[in-house]
Order: sequence, then C-alpha cells, then structure tokens
Amino acid sequence: MSVREERYSKSETLELRRKLIGSSCRLFFSDDPIKIVRASGQYMFDDEGKQYLDCINNVVHVGYCHPVVVNAAHEQNQLLNTNARYLHDNLVEYATRLRRTLPEKLCIFYFVNSGSEANDLALRLARQYTKKNDIVVLDHAYHGHLTSLIDISPYKFRNLEGQKEWVHVAPIPDTYRGLYREDHSDPATAYASEVRKVLEDAQKKNRQIAAFIMESLPSVGGQIIPPEGYCQKVAEHVRTTGGVFIADEVQVGFGRVGKQFWSFQLQGDDFVPDIVTVGKPIGNGHPMACVVTTKEIAEAFTSTGVEYFNTFGGNPVSCAVGLAVLDVIEKENLREHATQVGKFLMELLNEQKNKHPVIGDVRGVGLFIGVDLINDAETRTPATEEAEYVIYRMKKEGIVLSTDGPGRNVLKFKPPMCFSMDNAKFVVEKLDIILKEIEKVSKSGTAM
Amino acid sequence: MSVREERYSKSETLELRRKLIGSSCRLFFSDDPIKIVRASGQYMFDDEGKQYLDCINNVVHVGYCHPVVVNAAHEQNQLLNTNARYLHDNLVEYATRLRRTLPEKLCIFYFVNSGSEANDLALRLARQYTKKNDIVVLDHAYHGHLTSLIDISPYKFRNLEGQKEWVHVAPIPDTYRGLYREDHSDPATAYASEVRKVLEDAQKKNRQIAAFIMESLPSVGGQIIPPEGYCQKVAEHVRTTGGVFIADEVQVGFGRVGKQFWSFQLQGDDFVPDIVTVGKPIGNGHPMACVVTTKEIAEAFTSTGVEYFNTFGGNPVSCAVGLAVLDVIEKENLREHATQVGKFLMELLNEQKNKHPVIGDVRGVGLFIGVDLINDAETRTPATEEAEYVIYRMKKEGIVLSTDGPGRNVLKFKPPMCFSMDNAKFVVEKLDIILKEIEKVSKSGTAM
Repeated sequence: MSVREERYSKSETLELRRKLIGSSCRLFFSDDPIKIVRASGQYMFDDEGKQYLDCINNVVHVGYCHPVVVNAAHEQNQLLNTNARYLHDNLVEYATRLRRTLPEKLCIFYFVNSGSEANDLALRLARQYTKKNDIVVLDHAYHGHLTSLIDISPYKFRNLEGQKEWVHVAPIPDTYRGLYREDHSDPATAYASEVRKVLEDAQKKNRQIAAFIMESLPSVGGQIIPPEGYCQKVAEHVRTTGGVFIADEVQVGFGRVGKQFWSFQLQGDDFVPDIVTVGKPIGNGHPMACVVTTKEIAEAFTSTGVEYFNTFGGNPVSCAVGLAVLDVIEKENLREHATQVGKFLMELLNEQKNKHPVIGDVRGVGLFIGVDLINDAETRTPATEEAEYVIYRMKKEGIVLSTDGPGRNVLKFKPPMCFSMDNAKFVVEKLDIILKEIEKVSKSGTAM
Repeated sequence: MSVREERYSKSETLELRRKLIGSSCRLFFSDDPIKIVRASGQYMFDDEGKQYLDCINNVVHVGYCHPVVVNAAHEQNQLLNTNARYLHDNLVEYATRLRRTLPEKLCIFYFVNSGSEANDLALRLARQYTKKNDIVVLDHAYHGHLTSLIDISPYKFRNLEGQKEWVHVAPIPDTYRGLYREDHSDPATAYASEVRKVLEDAQKKNRQIAAFIMESLPSVGGQIIPPEGYCQKVAEHVRTTGGVFIADEVQVGFGRVGKQFWSFQLQGDDFVPDIVTVGKPIGNGHPMACVVTTKEIAEAFTSTGVEYFNTFGGNPVSCAVGLAVLDVIEKENLREHATQVGKFLMELLNEQKNKHPVIGDVRGVGLFIGVDLINDAETRTPATEEAEYVIYRMKKEGIVLSTDGPGRNVLKFKPPMCFSMDNAKFVVEKLDIILKEIEKVSKSGTAM
C-alpha cells in the first residue's frame, strides 16, 4: 500500500475547510484540529505520523481499513453496483444473515444509506401502520440530522424552534442522575410509569401516539444503561394506546455490548421491539443502514400502494461490505472479545473511581462504557470543565476520547471492537495521571 | 476479475426477496424481474449471460464499474475512511473542484449520503435563512423518500395523506402538454406568472414562503425542458416574497445535458439558484450527495449554534470517488460526447416521430431525452399502454428503458454517459420495429 503525498499542508487544508465547508459541520478539537491521513485497526495517524488510539469511533466497528471488508468492497465494485430494482444475491443473503441475529417476529428489511434515513423510515412505517402521528421520545435523545428527526430529538430541538405539539418527552431512565436512582427498589417500573403518564397526558389532549422511540442504550443522553425490564413495560403501555416501539440500534448494535448482538436484547428475551433501526457499524464506514420490522407493519406500508425507492439502499456493494462485517464479527469472535475487554476496562475504571472522587459513576456493558465525572458526590453536579480538560490532555497523549450527556461530563468509550486489553491499560494509566493533575490544580485553588 | 458462482438460482433469489424485503421496494419488470450479476460501461449481464443495454441508469454516470472510479475507492479504502470531524484533503479538494463548475456565489458545501438527504438539508437551510416555513413545488415533482420530501412531492403525496397546508403547488412548465404550449409567444413569463399567482394566494392566507424548489429539468414530471428564462423570473417572484430558489440537480447534474455542467445553467448565465442539491451521478453509485449554497445562507444556518453532523457525509472514500468521477468526465470528454450522442439520438427519434403518429413529441438536451407517446394528435392523450408495451418488448431485445410522466407514457433516456452512437442506432432500430407492431395491432383492432 503506497502512502500518497498529502496534497495540502495542514494549515492549507484547514484554510480551505473554513472557506468551503459549512461551519455548522464542526471539527473535533476545533482550536487545534487533527488531520488524519491513514488508519488501521484502532489506530489513526496524523499528517506528521503521530499515532492516536481511537476510543470513540463506533462506525469502524471491526477496525479501520479491515482487509476483509476492504477487499469485499473492491471485489463487488469491480463486478457490479446498481440499485435494488434488480434481483441480487447480496441483498437477500444479507437480509438472511441479519435475520438470524433477530427475534423471529422481526423479519422484513428495508435498506437505506444512513441511520438518519433509517429512523425517518421507521417513523413513516409506524405512522402508516398505526394511522396516528405523534411520537414519544426520551429526554436528551438524538435520532438524526433530518427535519423529521431534529423534531424528535430534544438534544437538538431545545436549541432550535422548540418542541412540536406532536412530540412528547419522557424522562430518561438514568439510574445515576435521573428521577429514580440506584436506591430505588424498582426503577424499571418507575421509569416506565413515567412514559405511561406522558401517554395519558397526550391522550387527554386528544393526541394520537404512533410510536415510542429510544436508543436501546441512550448515548448522547450520557451513556445510559436502562434498568432491565424497562422496555417490556414501556412497550406494553405504548401498545395499549395503539402505538409501536421503535428501538434505535444505530449506535449500539452489532455486538458492541458483547453478550448480545443487539442492545435491546439486554432487556431480556421477552422484549421484542416492533421496529429496529441499524446504521453506523453495519458497513464499517461504508454508507449503509437498515430498518427491520414485522410482517404486519410492512404490509400496512405496502397497502398504501406507494413505492419506496432508495437509490443507493441495498446495492450489491453495500451488502457485500455488510456481509464482510458480519463475517469478521464472527470469525474474530469480536463479541466475546468486547465482553472480555469491556469487563477489564470497567474494572480498571472502577479502581480509578475509588482513587478519584471526580469519578462519580462507571457504567457500561461490553465496549459501551461511560465515566461520569462530578464535582460533588452529594449533588452529582456534572464536572463539565474537568471532562473537557481530560479530553484535551488525552489528545496530547495520543488518545481520542470525547464526552456525552447533557452536562458534557460523561467520558464515552465506544471504540472499534478490536480495542485491546493493552489499550485499556494504556488509556486508564493516562486517565489516572490526568485526574491527578486536576486534583492538584483543584487543591491549589487555581482555575484550570 | 473472477466471476463468482452465484449463491442462489434466480427463483431462489426471488423467493428470498419476496420473503425478506418490504414489498414497497419494487422490482423492475415485477412479473419477470431481471437478476443482474455483472455490468460494465453501459451494459448489464443477467445470471444467464444475457446482455442488456442500459438506457436509464443516470447513477452510474461514467459507466458501470469504471476502473478509475473503482480503483480510487479501493486505494482510499485501504488508507483511511472516517468522518469529517477530522481534516482531510479529499473533502476540501472535492469542494474546490466542484466549486469551479458553479457560479461564484455558490461556494459553501455540505456533504451527505443521498439526494434525499441533500434535499432535506436544503429545506432546513432555506427555513433557517428565511425564518419562514412554506414550500412551493411544481406539480408531479418528486424530491425524495424522506418524510419532509414526500410532503413536498405531489407525485407521492397525492396517493398518501394529501397536501399539507404549508405546501403550494405550481403548474409544471411543460410546453407540450401543460397550460402554455409551443404556440404561446412567451411561455417562460406565462409559467413564471403562475408561480407568482401561487405565491400571492399563499400570502393572502398569511402563509410565509421559505423556498421554491424544482428539478432543473423535471424528470418524474415527464422529462420536461422548461422554457429558457423561466427560472430567472420565478426566482425574482420568490425572492420578492422573501423566499429562496432551490435547484434540485440530483438527477440532471454533472454534465448530463452536455454543453453545461449543471442543468440550471441552460436557463442562461444570469440565473443563479440560492441552493443547489446534487446526488445520484456524483459518486457513480457510491452513496454520496451534496448541498451547495451561498455564504449568507450558510451563515444563517451556523448562527443557530446547532451543529450539523452527518456520520458518513464527506468521508475520504466518498470524496476520492467523487474526484475520480470528475476526472473521468473531463478526461473522457463526456460532456462533449453527451452533446454529440444526444443530438444524434434526437435526430433518429425525430425521424421515428415523422413515421409513427404514436410519437407526439421528442424533447431533450444532451443525454436527457423524453419520447412522449400519445393516442391522439389533437388531445395528446398519453399512450400509457403503448409505452408499457414498448418497455416490455425492449426488455426482450436486451434493452432496459422505462417511462416517466404522470401518464407513464414518456419513454425516458438518461443512460450512462458512455452511451454510444451505435447504442443510439440500435435502440431506435428496435423502437421502429416495436412501434410497427403496435400499429399493426392497432389497425387490426385487437387489444394489445
């Protein structure tokens, strides 16, 4: 593999970027952005050859530039790329393979290009099936960049035109900082009852609920692990009012949580959503996504007589890439790996929690982990500034990490699945050093 | 290049497709669909080795599996694929290159994954900039499969819940079958006045117009060539009311029309849209699309303070593919080629028109051509059944063609740009034979 000479110096690239690309499209580390020129596995390299360990890119699921995935794309690209109006084996083979990972009821597939397109289609399916319009979402949720999804994303709409009358927001089932916490005897039931109240309030206003949508593990909300049994109870309430349950697995599917292929399965075998949306990791970076639903919902969508055509969705190259990703997950035993490495990383982080009072909570499953930084053990006030300091210091150490949560204080780990035990040790050692720096500054009374 | 053994027989593939894929996703020739296994240039090959000449796929713009494009994807896939939160040369180089094709005012770029995502973002930009909400569209238009776009696509919404109160429909500037025809002295002004009336009616109802959106050459509407000067006048009316002009170039950009790179440029140098959306041909089948706008509109979008992040949009692989497509268009002189072949095809089709009364109109520019089939020269009634017969007979002859227009009677040509003089001759020879069959049946009085 030949490494090309870079066309522009970093400062030229930055200048062109500022001139030509809408500035709503933000750079990481905007005051000193990184120019990445190549990557492999869990490592990225900048224009000066500096290595970065990537702790956050859940799109390059099986690792940057995985040769099995790259070669599958190239082989199919040389043979055929066209739309799904022709029969092709890759499309049906991919659906067949993905079906094996899902509960039997979820058996009809629609292929699209992004998680946003998937969530938008999920809303269309839900509305067509229920003949209702309103949507219930969790607070702080983000479901995508399209008009229809900004409308149902409190994370976004609170900063824009505000909440539409057809959107209803339920509290996030966060047992660390939410309404019901670790000391509650049954947070699953308590949080599900909050959804029921939202449904009842909506009905009192004659609003008709088409769907409840949530990320199976709320990510932007702060790397939240909903209490087991929550989704079953919510689904029951939502279905009673005639709505459906949409599980957004765009960030958290494909074995990230290790023991299960899908994060919604952490809730128990008795929970089956009506619609599941998948995206990011599905193609290891190739633009591809999918909606899965039941026969009944698919039939209601068909019954309108209106065709659904997605130009690139389900093309032979996307599906070849998707098949390769599934192969790698299986052959490299990445789910078991995520379980082991995730467990080890959680142990190391919990040791840090015992040493550093700024760590309020360490939560996670598999390679989906959040480290909740706080200023005060009693009030659990988000340590936003400290979290930002950690991120910038980590960057200097050659580690890319970032924050989530409404307080931007939760360090999030969702690395490529090849993230290793050694990587975990390395990151936590650096974290220890950085948190000591924070404590030193804090004790001396100086601002960071 | 090794041709893989097919995994399934055609009937098995079909059975799996029917079982697993939502039936709203329709197959071409649904009673006897084609299983395409490979393709090259303008030719596709089915599972039995039968060759099809493709007259309609405007996505594989420079030809199926073009080696320059395939190799660009492979080279970049081996090096790096990540999101646009890092600096990368491919993104800024692509924007630089595309900018050279556009009027100076159109200088800020947003990268997305599909024409639908591009049109959705265009609406968001227009609404944010104007602080208004309503949209004016042309009748029979189709702008994409997302919730926000179904709402503004008469082609779709007439079959669904109907027209939203914030959508306003203007007559399509069709000088063959529309309100003002070839005998009108100034159809550009007359059709633009229709838009003005729609704007005035909306304002009377206190509706606030954010944007007028049209395909620069309406495609689903029936391969329409708007009269020159129409867009300038419409833009003037729309801007007077405080709205912006969105040119949807998803189907018709990238030199398809030959003499101009963009179809809106056919209107004259004095016409510059406020927002342009591009898609399909941009990546020769790779999921990629783009929105281009002015500094003022981009700044208004930024001023909300809300980030726009598109996971796959503008990734280094997409941009490498996009650059390769631009290279091929230039190096193979495809715009000049489209002009020459398109002119020749139009001549041949006009000869057919003189011979066959079922051809009412032949219109087009470059390799965007429509053949309007009619039952009666006086009423210009769409010859829907005849058009369908042509499509099915062409298939037997190894030619993939299809129809557009509200009457599904316009044979549409928008082939890969490498479509040749010989291809043109071959298709028109077959068309002659098939139209004679139709006339024979018609004379004998039997139903087709």
